[in-house]
Amino acid sequence: MALEQDVRIFMDKFRMISPGDKVLVGVSGGPDSVALLHLLWRMKGELQISLAVAHLNHMFRGEEARADARLVEGLAKSLGLPVYVEEFDVPAYRERTGLSAQDAARRVRYRFFEEVARRTGASRVALGHHADDQAETILFNFLRGTGLAGLKGIPPVRGKYIRPLLDIRRREIEDYCREHSLPVREDASNKKTIYTRNRIRLELIPRLEADFNPRLVDALVHLGHICREENDYLEEQAALLYGRALKNQKEHCLLFAVAELLSSPPALVRRVLRRAWRHLTGEADLSYLQVECLLALLHNPVGGKVVELPRGVRASRQGQVLRLWIGGDAPGVPDYSYPLEVPGITYIPEINSSVKARLISINDAPDPRSLSAREALLDYDTLPGLLTVRRRREGDRFQPLGMAAHVKLKKFLIEQGIPREERDCLPLVVAGDEIIWVGGVRPGEPWKVTPDTKRCLYLQILEGKVPGA
Amino acid sequence: MALEQDVRIFMDKFRMISPGDKVLVGVSGGPDSVALLHLLWRMKGELQISLAVAHLNHMFRGEEARADARLVEGLAKSLGLPVYVEEFDVPAYRERTGLSAQDAARRVRYRFFEEVARRTGASRVALGHHADDQAETILFNFLRGTGLAGLKGIPPVRGKYIRPLLDIRRREIEDYCREHSLPVREDASNKKTIYTRNRIRLELIPRLEADFNPRLVDALVHLGHICREENDYLEEQAALLYGRALKNQKEHCLLFAVAELLSSPPALVRRVLRRAWRHLTGEADLSYLQVECLLALLHNPVGGKVVELPRGVRASRQGQVLRLWIGGDAPGVPDYSYPLEVPGITYIPEINSSVKARLISINDAPDPRSLSAREALLDYDTLPGLLTVRRRREGDRFQPLGMAAHVKLKKFLIEQGIPREERDCLPLVVAGDEIIWVGGVRPGEPWKVTPDTKRCLYLQILEGKVPGA
Repeated sequence: MALEQDVRIFMDKFRMISPGDKVLVGVSGGPDSVALLHLLWRMKGELQISLAVAHLNHMFRGEEARADARLVEGLAKSLGLPVYVEEFDVPAYRERTGLSAQDAARRVRYRFFEEVARRTGASRVALGHHADDQAETILFNFLRGTGLAGLKGIPPVRGKYIRPLLDIRRREIEDYCREHSLPVREDASNKKTIYTRNRIRLELIPRLEADFNPRLVDALVHLGHICREENDYLEEQAALLYGRALKNQKEHCLLFAVAELLSSPPALVRRVLRRAWRHLTGEADLSYLQVECLLALLHNPVGGKVVELPRGVRASRQGQVLRLWIGGDAPGVPDYSYPLEVPGITYIPEINSSVKARLISINDAPDPRSLSAREALLDYDTLPGLLTVRRRREGDRFQPLGMAAHVKLKKFLIEQGIPREERDCLPLVVAGDEIIWVGGVRPGEPWKVTPDTKRCLYLQILEGKVPGA
Repeated sequence: MALEQDVRIFMDKFRMISPGDKVLVGVSGGPDSVALLHLLWRMKGELQISLAVAHLNHMFRGEEARADARLVEGLAKSLGLPVYVEEFDVPAYRERTGLSAQDAARRVRYRFFEEVARRTGASRVALGHHADDQAETILFNFLRGTGLAGLKGIPPVRGKYIRPLLDIRRREIEDYCREHSLPVREDASNKKTIYTRNRIRLELIPRLEADFNPRLVDALVHLGHICREENDYLEEQAALLYGRALKNQKEHCLLFAVAELLSSPPALVRRVLRRAWRHLTGEADLSYLQVECLLALLHNPVGGKVVELPRGVRASRQGQVLRLWIGGDAPGVPDYSYPLEVPGITYIPEINSSVKARLISINDAPDPRSLSAREALLDYDTLPGLLTVRRRREGDRFQPLGMAAHVKLKKFLIEQGIPREERDCLPLVVAGDEIIWVGGVRPGEPWKVTPDTKRCLYLQILEGKVPGA
């Protein structure tokens, strides 16, 4: 039997079954699942497996549906197999949940399989999806808009679910049923073209086969296999990048290192952003354009813009940190305070930056006028206490270099044109009660280097976690 | 102008143009390329570029085509730009080459652009492809059967070619032409549904938009961007694996390490095999099913099967080596001979294996009966000369362990059931004229360990190139 052999090779390739498995076969009464049951029944000695049959009456089609159930019971009994038949009022469930008929039926059906598998100790659940179903799914996703995840179509194996017929054409399955005189019933709702899926199956695919490619179904099945493998690999690599780039994870808030993302392949960054959104919402996926908005945010060094995503997710870039959170206003940078290592490097996870501190003799010190805003040179011996690095706080006051008196830090930062969202990202180096450096903006006047200075404290802000921190 | 801004953002995103570039614009006379020329002409000051126009008359459509050429010349002159117009008899070229009308036109057109770009010193060639062209290309490839490479569609940038309108819909381009009263002509052959591409554009896409997704073109354009990025990343990773797995490269013959491929993600292995085929043939690609045959070969440890691929490429697996070659019979393992390092590790690239040799005292030696066929223990002090490892040769004779006399090696290997294709993969360790070990099969009787043995030579076959070799 060519079909039997093809199915066997396909099952082996995906390691669907091991000796000793108890396989529950989901049988609707249509040719696909009836053929699947019959094939597995014939192979069961060779495969050393035991079989059971499960059938759910979705109560969409009254007497017709009860006839399907009787057919499945009769078939299972004639093969000497245990059979589990149940009814569930899917129309009522659909009413309650507002799901589409097909979605509601699918959810209820898989819950039923889970439940029967648990009850009977089945290690596998075999389903009758075939190559034409696969092509239809891939074409449906392609038309609706998708990436690789949609083009991979139905998986041959997912958890305990296996689909041994996924590479077999429907016509071969129907031939098999006829050859073995198997009793089958057709679900009349499969013929209704009011469903998009049915229109794809009954009208579009035949038309495309006639007009463009008689081997279209094979081409789509092959595309599915390629995309499944490539998607798996890309997801693995994206998971690794996600782990490297994620710097801090609180309930409902994720912080990513901008530099790590910007230096990575865009294909993976896109997937990391989608992962972050899924992690926050538990939902399936973001659209291409939503990911584009996040990418634009990531590439924009001017902080403060907040991108709004579906399900209440927001995102903003502040300095070297990309922040995604759910609900509420921008969480901003949480309050923090760390003793400053002198000499040494102090890493600040809240802003994904490090402050490097060195003591140097005045003779080795650079010209203070040559320093960037991310460096400071101070007279070490004038500092009034132990050094700490912390976030700015309500009421902070400060005497900026070049000014005669203390000013409110907030007012000073506004005058300097620092955007509101950036202000919490500035690390303040404080000694006792005094702010000696507003990192990234300006050092304090009282501790500037003078002709009397002997030892200098040289401070530097570095991006990310620097080795040694 | 919204359109102008969108085009500008798209050009920046793909870094299409730098100040000082000389851009040759390919203009057919249709709305796409006329709008492109006009847009670039308006931006040229801001972009700091200079422009020139190129038009090829393909001589498919007599007087009509000459009118197109006159239109382009007039437009270029009205914008004060240099224009290069040429004629080429594509129908005659098509006759000579047997190419399709569209393929012939494309080849001739790109040759013309190359030639004019070289002559005028243009650093960029801008073409008018737009979002509807992109969707049409992706849908065409999808229907014909493809992987990611086909789904990425037309590249925004390839070498000197840039396509600034690739994300813009045709209807926006036509609106732009009307708004600016630009003179345009429609190529009547674009309306002929005898071409598959035209049927996709004129009939299929409108029908799919009406029946399934009014935003289909956007969905396909987005899919193109995603697939381009993912394909680029996968190709980079596949190139790295190709470099690691390729063990030997001769004219028309590539040898890959089976272990390296088997331990790598299948998505990359598939791409490595396609690369190998492209490398041998210079041709575009292998089909899914052809790659499947190669994968089956790779996974099958029983050597000897030869897979035939298009363009005269053949492949076989012999032991730890996957071999792809072009033309002729199986090249088999080439003759080789290397001095054996004692003690040390000798790598044999021809079979991608190493032979490890150690001298050990009889007191430390393992029980000879516990050894696998890939190990041997010999009496070192009885060996008749310097040690060499080589391929078997015509006329080799050998006294196998446990036999009283020499036999023909070939006959012995046949009796041992070693398949013909495997025999050349066995490394022979020889000392002077004598075979002391048929690696992987049996040591020689005269050098077996006896109660008199003091020093043993312990040999081992290891897969691949072992550190230290």
